[in-house]
Parts: sequence; structure tokens; C-alpha cells
Amino acid sequence: MKPLKVGIAGLGTVGAGVMKLLAAQADLIAARAGRPVVVTAVSARDRNRDRGVKLDGLNWYDDAVGLAHDPAVDVVVELIGGAEGKAKALAEAAIAAGKTLVTANKALLAVHGVALAKAAEANNVTIAYEAAVAGGIPVIKALREGMAANQVSRVAGILNGTCNYILTVMREEGRDFADVLADAQRLGYAEADPSFDLDGVDAAHKLAILAGLAFGARIDFSSVHIEGIRRISGIDIAFAQELGYRIKLLGIAEKTEAGISLRVHPAMVPMEQPIATIDGVFNAVLMDGDFAGPVLLRGRGAGEGPTASAVVADLIDFARGIHVPVWGMAESALEEARLVPMSELNSAYFLRLSVVDQPGVLADVTAILRDHGISLESMLQRGRAPGEAVPIVLVTHETTEAAVSAALARVGTLPAVLEPPALIRIEPK
Amino acid sequence: MKPLKVGIAGLGTVGAGVMKLLAAQADLIAARAGRPVVVTAVSARDRNRDRGVKLDGLNWYDDAVGLAHDPAVDVVVELIGGAEGKAKALAEAAIAAGKTLVTANKALLAVHGVALAKAAEANNVTIAYEAAVAGGIPVIKALREGMAANQVSRVAGILNGTCNYILTVMREEGRDFADVLADAQRLGYAEADPSFDLDGVDAAHKLAILAGLAFGARIDFSSVHIEGIRRISGIDIAFAQELGYRIKLLGIAEKTEAGISLRVHPAMVPMEQPIATIDGVFNAVLMDGDFAGPVLLRGRGAGEGPTASAVVADLIDFARGIHVPVWGMAESALEEARLVPMSELNSAYFLRLSVVDQPGVLADVTAILRDHGISLESMLQRGRAPGEAVPIVLVTHETTEAAVSAALARVGTLPAVLEPPALIRIEPK
Repeated sequence: MKPLKVGIAGLGTVGAGVMKLLAAQADLIAARAGRPVVVTAVSARDRNRDRGVKLDGLNWYDDAVGLAHDPAVDVVVELIGGAEGKAKALAEAAIAAGKTLVTANKALLAVHGVALAKAAEANNVTIAYEAAVAGGIPVIKALREGMAANQVSRVAGILNGTCNYILTVMREEGRDFADVLADAQRLGYAEADPSFDLDGVDAAHKLAILAGLAFGARIDFSSVHIEGIRRISGIDIAFAQELGYRIKLLGIAEKTEAGISLRVHPAMVPMEQPIATIDGVFNAVLMDGDFAGPVLLRGRGAGEGPTASAVVADLIDFARGIHVPVWGMAESALEEARLVPMSELNSAYFLRLSVVDQPGVLADVTAILRDHGISLESMLQRGRAPGEAVPIVLVTHETTEAAVSAALARVGTLPAVLEPPALIRIEPK
Repeated sequence: MKPLKVGIAGLGTVGAGVMKLLAAQADLIAARAGRPVVVTAVSARDRNRDRGVKLDGLNWYDDAVGLAHDPAVDVVVELIGGAEGKAKALAEAAIAAGKTLVTANKALLAVHGVALAKAAEANNVTIAYEAAVAGGIPVIKALREGMAANQVSRVAGILNGTCNYILTVMREEGRDFADVLADAQRLGYAEADPSFDLDGVDAAHKLAILAGLAFGARIDFSSVHIEGIRRISGIDIAFAQELGYRIKLLGIAEKTEAGISLRVHPAMVPMEQPIATIDGVFNAVLMDGDFAGPVLLRGRGAGEGPTASAVVADLIDFARGIHVPVWGMAESALEEARLVPMSELNSAYFLRLSVVDQPGVLADVTAILRDHGISLESMLQRGRAPGEAVPIVLVTHETTEAAVSAALARVGTLPAVLEPPALIRIEPK
């Protein structure tokens, strides 16, 4: 049969990985795809860099957009990255040229995904993006196809391996954030500029994509509440352990009568939850279907091999003739859902205060919580040091984010309270 | 658009569940499938039984094969069950009539899957069977499509919810097998005749399907080594706990240079393994891809809702035009792989003996193990009762099944050894 001709834009780790995978398993892929899958054209910044892959005989484009117009390219693989610029220009050009787009670009999909879907439909092509979320775990396929018979009420997960690695090592080795981060950078688990990972933006991109698919909704990326892990301290991790939790950076998308809520933040996950024990660089996604029940997927969320595996799975789908709407349904059928503001969130909270160990402090704090209708499940104090700073931990029953925010603003003004209180939301059991 | 017309054979729990699901989410399914999915014809044993679903206006067939020839049926859903008889006749008739088959029938696929695939190809239709393995977990899709770029070296899992429920309750509540089984039957977690579940046959059917897909191989179902959970005792569960393991009924398919091995048996799973903590009626499947790495899926493996979710996902795939080869590649491309006999298995072993507490017993036992080249990692004895029966547990280093079988045959002949030794294979860390 006629081979599927692939053009790849971006020959970094993932791009080179895709080329290596296609070469290493050419026969297996041809058997599964029903025809050979071959790279015919590439684009990258530097033609002469050694990437461990052969570029002889391939059409070369200094400008990636050239791939869209190459008649020797059936499908364009965009591995440039970023929501704007070259990546977006290539995506638009490929679609306009009637070519299906395979991409690992979570930022592009999270920010421009609906507009791109509309363009893709108009041109009778699709966009495949398994590699954009959770690397080697086929989570897009599971959600868009496997769970297609379900109303999905919740998608939650550990979506950033860098953060999960850092939190895991901090817990296991009792080390500081900065120290573990430096290690992670040396090991290649964290980028030289790790902001997108550590500040939760990468997880938020992935969450927005999962939410769009799960709920069949138009997601405005700017409506995702985002917090990262930089302020998680060793003391919080130790308290979590003591209380039966693990601290994880979670992305959580929920759909209720009130609307859709989207948030990325550190959370206390009860040890009984399967997601609590997913450690190291692993990712996990939990999706709740009304008929299927909870489905959890766990695997490697990044790296050359896993990401290449996802890109090539999309290519095999395309070669097999699988064509699923970008967001699992027609763009015109996507809902405009109300977004529930963070202030309306219902949750239990872990609050940690650093206070001067003197009589009356606790009475002042608990009085403020009571005034805001917040009741406590437990309270922990570590150590005694009259006149000095001691940590106090308060675990609340379920209450609203608005009440907790207002209470903490007042608590922060008490003279005996030395630092801004730490707040970590607690996942239900 | 033209609706997809579905004929359903078998209106038990799953069949009625599919009808309820299609009715309850008709709009959502139409949006995702791109057209309505409607039931037009049904077949069951008793037309008048109340199943909580409306049959008015549907074509009724006393003989399920009639569905295959009904021009008002585009796709036949076979929910009769069993490898032979009516189910097989309907499957063959549907394929011969050029209709795609959706089935939850693991026995049929495990035993006749390759022959049916050949017939399906000849008639340019496919067979979809997401519901045949692990209920609501999209494991067939994950393996056949999500992992398509990978050579899969191993698929292992908890494939039977009844067994996992019983083992979980035995451990958590310290209760006996028979007692927990009776409870499970009352709760509907075990069938009135639970042999297929308890003896590992159900898990073996599912394993054979996973292996065929994972390795692109013709699997002879009769070559699966099958043991069930009836001989697991409370004392083994307690020893497992002490040694840092959980006992799970696992299905394990492995492909090595030596060939393919297929086995279902209870196993000691190290607590560090994610599969160790999957409890109750949940199923889990772990697949190791050479590029993706290990991917784990966990969810509900049975029941009306999860199984209906899987059946309808297959219908939506069909409505979307997704057509994947039955075994992930053409039938002619499937390998005849060598099957590795159980005697060649390499594993560590948990061995439990009931011996008379008298001098020299241990020396005799360990001498026999030494003679067979088996070295021990640890030995545990509980209690002292001179002249009476005491349990002794031996944990071996990795050795072969052949060596252990031969050694145990000799150990069993020692006068001080009171019962046939218990053997549980240990999964690697």
C-alpha cells in the first residue's frame, strides 16, 4: 500500500525520538498501520546539528510552514512548541492546506484549540494531540473514545512529572525544594527555565485540554486557577504524612450544576486514593464517567520515548483512517459553560500558621474561623517555645474558598502571626 | 445524519444496560458519534420478562441469528456469552452478512478470535470487543491503538473482580475463603456458579485476548496455564502481609527471546508495585511498551454500567467510521510464536509447608532445595509446638518452575511434612 508521508517540524528530543521510533519499528508499524509510515520532510533551526538521525534524502525547510505546502507530505507533525509564533503559523497553514495535524503542543491546543478545530472541520481534516497530555499514557484516546458513552463529571490528575518528582524526593529524602530542584535540573527532569512546570502553567495547559474533551465545552484558558509548588515546604510535607496525606500538584476539572471549575494547585491527597501513591516522574489521570465509573491511567508523562510513542500512535491512527473530531464532537456542538469562580469552591483546608507561642493566640485564630462559619476537624501544634515561633496546623471541615480567604486575611493581621498562612486544599477521601 | 441501527442479542444485565445507556445519553452520544445511535432489533430468550427497558417498536427475534439478516440492523451486538453455540453462530452470521460485530464475549474471542478475524477481513467488517476485557476500562483501545507504536513485552493484570474482591475482604477482615465467597454471592459480586471466576478461566480468556493484541500473535487458548484462588488460605495472606506483599490473582503474558508465556495464578505482589494496592472489585492492566514505558489502567471491570459503557464506546467508534483490524493487524500478519512451557518459568517462590515441629525437618527440606539448586532468601516459622504441626515459610531466590516442582515433589514425601506444600509465585519488585 501507499506509504503515509510525514513531515516533522522541530527536531529536538521529541522530533528526533519520533524519527528514531519510526526507523526502529518500521515493520511493526507498517503491519499495524496497514501501510508504511515514512518521514519525507523535516524542518528545524539548524540543519547541521547531530541529532543521531539521518536526514539524507528528506526535504528540508528552514521555515516550517513549507511543510504544509510540500506535496510529499500527507500529515504535518508540529513539535515546535508554544501557543503562538511558528507553531501556530504551521498549524494554521497545515490545516488550510487540507493536511491533518499531529502535535505535542499543549499550549497551542489549550489556547487556540477551539479555533483550530473550527478551521480543521472546514477543511475536512483533524488534529491529533495524544502527545500533548501525559506523554506515553493514551489519555486523550481514553477520554475522547474510550469514555465517549459517558458524561464525565470530573477529570483530575498529576499532570506534571517535574513537580511530582520534586515533591516525591522532598518527601522521601526530607530535602528542601531548592536543593531538589537543582538535582532535577542536573538529571534532566527539570528544564533550565523551569517556571512553566513549577508554577503550574504546563499542568494548566493539559488540564484545559482534558476539560474541553471531557465536558464538550469551550474552555477559556485564562479562567484556569493556577498555583505551583514553589511555596511547598518540608514542614507541610511532614504534616501531610502525619495526617495521612500526600501533597501532589493536581489539575482538577469538575462539572456540576453550578458550572465548570478548573484549577491547578498543590493538594493533600488521602493515602487511600490511588493517585496518592503515584510518585516520581510518573503522571496519572483519573476520569469519572457516569456509567464507566472511575478510570485511572498512570504512566510516563514526558521524555523522548513516551512522547514519541504518543506521536506515532496518532500517525498510525491516521494511517488506519481513524478520524475523530478534535474535541470529540463538532466545534459547533461545544458548550459555553459557566465557569465557577474559585471563591465558590467547596473544600476542606489544611492551614499552617507560624505564630508566637503565647497565651491567647489560638483563641484569636479560632474565633476568626468561627466568625466565618469555618469548623475545624483537627488542630496540631509542634513543640513548645514560649515567646518564640511555633507552627500550628488547622484542618477544616468542608467550607468555601471565600470564607477561608476572608478568614486568613484577618488571621494574617494578628500581631502574633508571623508569616502569611500556608493554605493547601484537601481532596475528599 | 442517518442513524446507526443496532441489533442486540441478549438482554441480561449488560444488554438491558446498553439499552438504558443509549436512551439516557441519546443526545450526548449523537453529538459524539456524529449521528444518532438507535436500537432497532433485539433477541432474547423471554420476550415478556420485565427488564426495565422498552421493547415497543423493535424487531424481535426468538433466534438471535435473525439479527444478522435484518436490513434494519447495521451492527450486531452479541451479549449472549459462551465460546460456542448461539453466540458463535450469531457472530459468524453477522460477519457473513457483512455486519460489524460488537461483543462482550471473552470466551468467544479467546477461543475463536483468529478464525473470526479472518472471516471479518474477508467480509470487510471488523469485530469490536472493548467490553470483553476489564469492563469500563478502555484497555483494548489503549493496547490496540494507544500503544500501537510499541513492542509490548508484557501485559499483566488483575482481570477478575470477583477474585480480587474475595482476596481483598479475606485480607482486610481476616475471614475465610468460603465465608467471603458466600457474601460475594449475596452481594452479586460472584455468580451462583462461580467456577469460571474462581478457577481463573475468566481471567485466562481475557489474558489470551490481551496477549493476542499485545504480541500480534495467534494464541492457542489451551496453552494458558491456569490456577484459581480456591486454595489461598488466610495464613498465606497473613504471611504475605508480613513479607511486604499482597496476594492477587494475576494474568501475566510475557514475550521474550524464548517465546510467549501465558499464565493465570495467584501471585505475591510487592507492595511497591502499583498493582498491589488495587483492591475490591477493581481491575487493573499494566502494559510495558518499549517506547512508552509502563502504562497502568485501573477501573471497574464488570457490572451493568461499566460494561455498557464499553459496548457503547465501540458503537460510537463504528458510527465515527473507526475501523481497526481485529487483532491490531491483518490476520495473515499474526505470528505463530513459540509457547514457553510453565516448567521454564523463572520466578521467586513463596513455599509454605505444614510440618511436625521436630529436630531435623528443616535440615531435610533445605537439603532437598539445595539438591535442586534452589537458594533461599528467607525462612519464617510461626510458633513452637514440639511434636505438633507448625507452618514453615520459605522464600526462594529466582529459580525455575521445574526445579521447584521437582523439589516439592520430594519434600512432599518427607514423613514430617503433613500436607501438600503451598506454592505462590512472587512478582519481581
